[in-house]
Formats: sequence, C-alpha cells, structure tokens
Amino acid sequence: MNEKLVYLRNKLKTQNIDGMIITNSSNVSYLLGIPSSIEAILLITKKENICITDARYIELINKIITVYDEIVVTNIKDVSKDDFENYFAFHENIGFEEYTLTYMEYKKMMHTYKLNNAVETDKIIEKQRMIKDDDEIQNIKKACEITDNCFKHLTNFIQIGMTEKEIAFEIEKYFKLNGADDISFKPIVASGVNSSVPHAIPTDKKIEEFDIITIDMGCKYNGYCSDMTRTIFVKGVKPEYKAVYDLVLKNQLLTLDEIKDGKSIKSLSQLVENDFKLYGYDLVHSLGHGVGLQIHEMPAVSAKNDTNLKQNEVITSEPGIYVFGRFGVRIEDTVLVGKEGGTALTNTTKDYVII
Amino acid sequence: MNEKLVYLRNKLKTQNIDGMIITNSSNVSYLLGIPSSIEAILLITKKENICITDARYIELINKIITVYDEIVVTNIKDVSKDDFENYFAFHENIGFEEYTLTYMEYKKMMHTYKLNNAVETDKIIEKQRMIKDDDEIQNIKKACEITDNCFKHLTNFIQIGMTEKEIAFEIEKYFKLNGADDISFKPIVASGVNSSVPHAIPTDKKIEEFDIITIDMGCKYNGYCSDMTRTIFVKGVKPEYKAVYDLVLKNQLLTLDEIKDGKSIKSLSQLVENDFKLYGYDLVHSLGHGVGLQIHEMPAVSAKNDTNLKQNEVITSEPGIYVFGRFGVRIEDTVLVGKEGGTALTNTTKDYVII
Repeated sequence: MNEKLVYLRNKLKTQNIDGMIITNSSNVSYLLGIPSSIEAILLITKKENICITDARYIELINKIITVYDEIVVTNIKDVSKDDFENYFAFHENIGFEEYTLTYMEYKKMMHTYKLNNAVETDKIIEKQRMIKDDDEIQNIKKACEITDNCFKHLTNFIQIGMTEKEIAFEIEKYFKLNGADDISFKPIVASGVNSSVPHAIPTDKKIEEFDIITIDMGCKYNGYCSDMTRTIFVKGVKPEYKAVYDLVLKNQLLTLDEIKDGKSIKSLSQLVENDFKLYGYDLVHSLGHGVGLQIHEMPAVSAKNDTNLKQNEVITSEPGIYVFGRFGVRIEDTVLVGKEGGTALTNTTKDYVII
Repeated sequence: MNEKLVYLRNKLKTQNIDGMIITNSSNVSYLLGIPSSIEAILLITKKENICITDARYIELINKIITVYDEIVVTNIKDVSKDDFENYFAFHENIGFEEYTLTYMEYKKMMHTYKLNNAVETDKIIEKQRMIKDDDEIQNIKKACEITDNCFKHLTNFIQIGMTEKEIAFEIEKYFKLNGADDISFKPIVASGVNSSVPHAIPTDKKIEEFDIITIDMGCKYNGYCSDMTRTIFVKGVKPEYKAVYDLVLKNQLLTLDEIKDGKSIKSLSQLVENDFKLYGYDLVHSLGHGVGLQIHEMPAVSAKNDTNLKQNEVITSEPGIYVFGRFGVRIEDTVLVGKEGGTALTNTTKDYVII
C-alpha cells in the first residue's frame, strides 16, 4: 500500500477511528497522487481504500495509481444505495473532515453511508501533509526554480511607464508558458505608496522613477506551490527605503538560520517581532505559513503557534515593514526546514535590485 | 431599509424565522451592495441589521451604505462575548446557510451566539438573487458589453501559430485592462480536436489552418458576471463543422424565443435535447445556468429543474455538440428572461466568424 495511506491508517488506528471519508480535494490529491482538479473522494474502510469518481476521470486515475497503491477505483454510477450503506458496516467510528465539509454535505454523508458515529478528525491529513517527502520537495524546488526564472525575466521586462497590472499579467503569462501548471496565487505588484499595503491588488498605477516595487508571486509544479517576494527599486534606492530594506533583510536572513528541526515557531516569530520593535516597527502579519499542495497550509508561522518546526516541513519566511501612507518592504523565501537550519528553495538575490 | 433586506425579512417572517446569520460572501455582498472581497457577515435580528467586519473594511463599507439602508456597521474588536450571546436573545428560530457553512463553522456559530434552534434556510437568499433589479441588469449588461468588445479584439489578435494559452491570456489581460473588475471564470480556448471536450483547459497547441476554435469567456463588472461562447473558424469552414454549427445555432436561437416568464425550464432543455437526438447527438451538459454575482447560480437550466423561468432572471443558453475525438461546437449567450421572450445581453455575431 502507498506509504501515505499506511501512515494515515496507523494514525487513525491510534485514535480508534475505523474508517474515514475523505472529500477535501487537496487531501484526496495528496493521498492518491492525482491532480486536485480531478473530482474524486476516497473511502478508507477496514478492508479497502476506495476511490469513487465518475466516467471523466476513471481512465486518468487508473493511469496514475499502481497495483502497489492498493486502491480500488470505482465509477459512482456503479455504486448502489446498498453499496454506500455497506462500505462502513461493522465499523464503529468513521472520521470526516469537519473543517471543509459543509453542514449539508455532513447531513448527506450521514444519510448516504448510514453512519451512526461520525467523528471529527482535527485536520489529521493536513497535519500529515506538513512533512514533505522527497518527491514533494523536488516538486516545490521546481516551482521555486520557475519563480526565480520569472524574476530574472521581470528585471528585463519592467520599464518605467508600465502599469502594475501589466507586470502582474506578465508574471501569470510567464508561469503558464514556462512549465508551471498554474499560478499559486494572484501575483502582487505594488509600487510606490501602494507597497505600504501588505496585500495590495495590482492597479493601473504606472512605474515611476525611484519607485520601490514589491513583487509577491508563486507558481505550481505538479500541484506543489512556490511563494517568493522581492522588493526592488527603479533607477536607484532612496535612503529611507534603504534603511527599512536592510532591517527587513537582516531579519529575513536571521530566520533562515533558525528554521530548523525543533525550533519553536512562536520564538522564531518573536525574534523578528522584537527586533522590529527596537526600531519602532510592528510585524503586522504572520511571519509565514506552510507551503505545499496549497499555498497556505499548516503550520501557521506566527507567535500564536505553540508547536515546533520539524525537518522537511516547507514554510515561508516573509518579514515585512509597512510605513503607513508611504511605502513597504517585504522579503520572502520558500524555505525547507533542515536539521541545522533552513534552506531557501527560492534563490533570487536579496541584494538591492535596481532596474 | 434597503429593498433587498425588506424582501428577505418578509420571506423569513413567512417561514417563522426570527433572525438569520449570513456568512456567505456573495449573499452578504448582495444584501449590502459591497464587493464580495470584503470580509463581513450580516446578522438579521428582530431589531437590527448588523454588519460585523474588521478595521480594514469599516471605512469602505460606511462609504457605500447609506442611512436609508438601516445597517449598523460594527468592528468585530468591539463585539464582546456577551454581545454575541445577546444578539439573538428572545429569538426562537435563527436561520443559517447550511450549503456554505462548514460543519465546524456551524458548531462555532451555535456556541458563539448561544443558539438553541438554528434552522436551515434552503438557499433563501440565493433564490431571492435569481430575480435581478435594474441596477443588477445594468451591471450584467456592462460586463456583456466588455465581453463583446473582447471578442472583437480577438478577431484581430488571433493568428495562425499562436497557442491556445496565449489567446486565453490575451482574454484575461483584455478584461482586466478594459474596465472589468476581473474575469468571471478561466477562459476556455479549445482548438481543433481539443474543442471536442466541453470544459477544455487551454494548452500549448498552436492554432492551425482550418481549425475550429471554441472560445468561452466572461468578465465581472461591479461584481456581476457575463458568460459567452463563440465557435470560430480559421481560414474557412469545413463542411462537417458547418453542419454541426448550423444545428447548434438553430437550437440556440430557438431557446432565445422561449426564454420567457412562465416557461418550464425542463421543457426548454428538452426542446434542445430532442432536436439534437433527431440528428443523433446528445446534449451532454446542462443547457445553461443562472448568472449574477456568481458565474453559476440559480436557476440550474437543465431537464432536472422542475421550476419555471421568471421575468428578470438572467441565465445562459449554451447548447453544444461534441464529436468525440474530432471537434465540438458551443454557442452561448447571457440572456435576460423577458415577458415574451429572451434578450441576449451578449451581442457578438453568431454568423460564421472566419479569421
């Protein structure tokens, strides 16, 4: 049986859960190794792993999974009312995904499978997904490499007089035409005063001389996401920008050393918060987030998280300072948690980039 | 009080529902007239309409709503545990949105508001949203106009040798740079054999001589969507394409006459299904769907829907024929349901377009 399913089954066993109904598309994608755009659910029963899908996807799924996976692929048209009711016969507790199933879907599930006791699973698969295996890391690395290449392209592409929107389009276009499956989120291109908003939406503002530009972008490769931010400069770097840039960069580099197995996430975040405070700034958003099949996944990287980092988690480190009504600086890498420290998977320079 | 809230309150009253917790962003957007990107919820209590949001949006919402709306806008930071518990004190049945609230959100809702009796509301607001008022129709018209203009642009833009992906990008770019808020869904550009799949994803396939190209696209204006499909030809129309095109077009035009107040949706769909069958084809997807703040909303336009069309609903009519492994034709307009017949709001020609 594939290792991810074995791991999940063991976890379920320790929690006295006899079976599970998995409907969240990222979780199904993770366990079966299929694109998340495929509409399929996965039933973990005592006897089998059953993937239920429809005619559109049967062939595609059967091409991807192997005998070794031990997954039965079934066309929903061939599943009778009785079949549904029998899948979990003689099972006690059946797990479900309480954070993504709607109230109505929950009700239908109880009815369809004739469940007596559905139990919450508290993000059991999302937690499993935190630790990446070699294939997953390779996919994220590849997504990061495409992102680095896109940045290189942008340094030649961006011209004074272009709008933020035009640059944002170029990013989307570059990703889709250069090997990525898709963007992993809508690119942020925020120039001049617009950079003072952490989650700016690209506008019709034109790039001007001596602008500061925050570019936050990422793509997907085999379903896995990258996430990178660089703050760059037009024609030159104003001294006020330089001071803030240096402070953000110092902290971003500091976090890379600390992104290691066993490190408390709270203390990692506080490291930056405290240093920013020394200079009168606040870290107004989270320091980062997990990255994988989804652009935001576990662990949340903020002072509210009481857990520790583990080797082979992939997170972002993205400290930022936003000077209200004036400008902002954010520097972000996608980072692999290592035994002794973090490895940035995005490799674009963090020196001043002046276009 | 704004008319949409008055209407909803009356509906709730007839169902003995004393209050409602509205969390679905499209529904909140509809009732308050605010962009759906704003994070806010709406509480309908016996005494008040309360919009709860956070510091980021307070100012923006207060700019949009007027005293006439009778909506209290509150910062969630100023709402105490007691406030939450008191909102629905002395209320019997509190409605919630069972189709969009997750199981976990439902549980939290019960706890936060200390509810005894939360009742399902069976898409009460989604049903209200089916009938569009003048402002909504104007917004959809404007989105359709931008879509027509985009099509005109494409007839000059598309060249032999371009990829489907490049054309899909141009569509996105055109919309965002020419007055639309956003695309309403990812554009479909499917050429040659790729057009034989109803929901094709643009590929790296290049446009060739004598290709048939299906272009399905739409944008948003003030939050309201357009949706249009045209099937066009390169250099000339092969006879096999012509026969299928004519059959699809005949049916699409037929539906426009029948998209009128009181028309049974089932019989509208069967009209096309039956005519296709005469020629050995099946209608493999729904004939259409409602369009508004969401690209797919009520009513579903298929033989499974037992309701009748009503004046001022906006739906699509999009019959399509797909010849397995060879090609497909789909023609779609966004259509306003009128007293005597439908008015296509997308006005691009349906004659053979040869580029």
